[in-house]
Amino acid sequence: MNNLSAPHGVESASANPHTTSAEPVAPTYSDILAAAARIAPLAHATPVLRSRAIDELAGCELHFKCENLQRGGAFKFRGASNAVFSLSDEEVARGIVTQSSGNHGGAIALAARLRGATATVVAPHNTPQVKLAAIRAYGAQIVHCEPDQASRDATTAQVLAQTGGVLVHPFNDPRVIAGQGTATLELLASAPTLDAVIAPVSGGGLLSGTAIAAHGHNPAIEVYGAEPEGARDAHDSLREGRRITGRKPDTICDGLRAELGTLTFPILRSHLRDILLVDDPQVIAAMRLIWERMKLVVEPSGAVPLAVVLANRERFANRRVGLIVSGGNVDLDLIAQWFARA
Amino acid sequence: MNNLSAPHGVESASANPHTTSAEPVAPTYSDILAAAARIAPLAHATPVLRSRAIDELAGCELHFKCENLQRGGAFKFRGASNAVFSLSDEEVARGIVTQSSGNHGGAIALAARLRGATATVVAPHNTPQVKLAAIRAYGAQIVHCEPDQASRDATTAQVLAQTGGVLVHPFNDPRVIAGQGTATLELLASAPTLDAVIAPVSGGGLLSGTAIAAHGHNPAIEVYGAEPEGARDAHDSLREGRRITGRKPDTICDGLRAELGTLTFPILRSHLRDILLVDDPQVIAAMRLIWERMKLVVEPSGAVPLAVVLANRERFANRRVGLIVSGGNVDLDLIAQWFARA
Repeated sequence: MNNLSAPHGVESASANPHTTSAEPVAPTYSDILAAAARIAPLAHATPVLRSRAIDELAGCELHFKCENLQRGGAFKFRGASNAVFSLSDEEVARGIVTQSSGNHGGAIALAARLRGATATVVAPHNTPQVKLAAIRAYGAQIVHCEPDQASRDATTAQVLAQTGGVLVHPFNDPRVIAGQGTATLELLASAPTLDAVIAPVSGGGLLSGTAIAAHGHNPAIEVYGAEPEGARDAHDSLREGRRITGRKPDTICDGLRAELGTLTFPILRSHLRDILLVDDPQVIAAMRLIWERMKLVVEPSGAVPLAVVLANRERFANRRVGLIVSGGNVDLDLIAQWFARA
Repeated sequence: MNNLSAPHGVESASANPHTTSAEPVAPTYSDILAAAARIAPLAHATPVLRSRAIDELAGCELHFKCENLQRGGAFKFRGASNAVFSLSDEEVARGIVTQSSGNHGGAIALAARLRGATATVVAPHNTPQVKLAAIRAYGAQIVHCEPDQASRDATTAQVLAQTGGVLVHPFNDPRVIAGQGTATLELLASAPTLDAVIAPVSGGGLLSGTAIAAHGHNPAIEVYGAEPEGARDAHDSLREGRRITGRKPDTICDGLRAELGTLTFPILRSHLRDILLVDDPQVIAAMRLIWERMKLVVEPSGAVPLAVVLANRERFANRRVGLIVSGGNVDLDLIAQWFARA
């Protein structure tokens, strides 16, 4: 987990043009540059904001990459639009299929609409109505499944078989990872001399793209994952050297409950300095700080990197640190409840 | 109120160099350009953000100038820093005095600290503790008064007499007005072909600066004030052609409860197309829309311009409209309450 040299054990997509789509390979820095050009007309170049007050509290220099201000309210649109606009016209004509209970479903629905494609989103029947409404508003079809991974996968396979559609997985897809990495390209264009970059980790798509982009810019940048204690499978997977699956996550961070994928796990092993853990009260305190001091609506998942910095002041003391604020899709009716608990 | 030609009945500061400080005169477009250069090293150049979703709802093209992301969480730092950094060293040595129950006090305290000056803020004894704490944190002294204008003015006069300090009034000061106008310069640099600009109106400093900046850029831009029904003194003052004072405002918009000043009233008479009114539920609905769709923490006062657009769809249909989002300083514990009422 301390290996900052070129990735090993991870094949390059560019170097293996004959690999079939059943065996996804990691995107390269060039793939991220290409993704940036591809999605430039589609996605927002989000601002990088700073806060003197939070810098003083943290004892370091923080640069917040505001993906809560991205289209759809989260970084997800970067990967979704890169994937959808990478497809051939023939593939687009078959329709796009994905599985998601959150922001990725909406992002795919929007990207598909912009490409003129149909989209089907496999979503657990307990998905919040507001998120289902967003997916429908972009014109995508929803197919319900049970809220467990086995049912999601079975239903997705069924939809793919029935429709002949093309799967765009929420994170275990090199085009999605390359798209997510474009946020870090923009962050580093704004703050080229960062010492470290921290992104939240769930399935690992955002963090993989972040790491490849950061190390393409400068291999000496330390890349950290930020993960809630109650969903620490990625942390433990890296410690144990094997991908841990099947746990039941318990955290307020609804965006960080997925498990690492077969593609993202080796990327993170090769690139990360560490994954740092925080508990939910620390996340809520960091979230409130961003709301109050930066005037930004951020969801719990998006505040985990700041929580990690505040819980590890010595490690980051006086350094320049980039934080990926991953999204801002919160139910405002839950806010008072969260802040009262903290 | 429909006069878009050059201001009349308002003297120009530049044209009247011998006017004493007891008779403030309106700043010119050149004064605003000079203010922009003066505060460039001090204030944030805040982003201008857009929302496709809100554009669709409003039926026009909206450009949000995000002064909630300004230092101190509100546009007030622009005027305060321009005024404080316009002072001579001799004036600075005398100390700065102001009266404020809100964001202006904190902005003056910060600007004074940056200039190396002492500051005294006359504040009603019922000022929220959080705002008093901010003023103290910047090193300013607080002198309490009763929560009415007579007591504020008497206490301010007393402090000025005792200290020999220099007054920087929250809005009836050409240097403050010129500073507030710099937000609109930046807005128009980002969106040069706006048809209209809308800012909230309280004492009229922000709206005066907005109007002078907009008409210096293009005299054909329609400038509107946005005011809550429960504090409609500016609206009624323009209708009646005289400055109405002494009313008791009743609105959720705590930043919009002041009365027009002797300097700002004639500026607004000369420049405005109209002042448009909305009630508190309309303000809360607009505020919630900005939180949910743009992921920005905005205070009620800052959402009044959007509320005005949504309540006047025909007037703004298909036009390019700039909105000054004046600030984001809200008590998060009040939010659930507001949104529950809406």
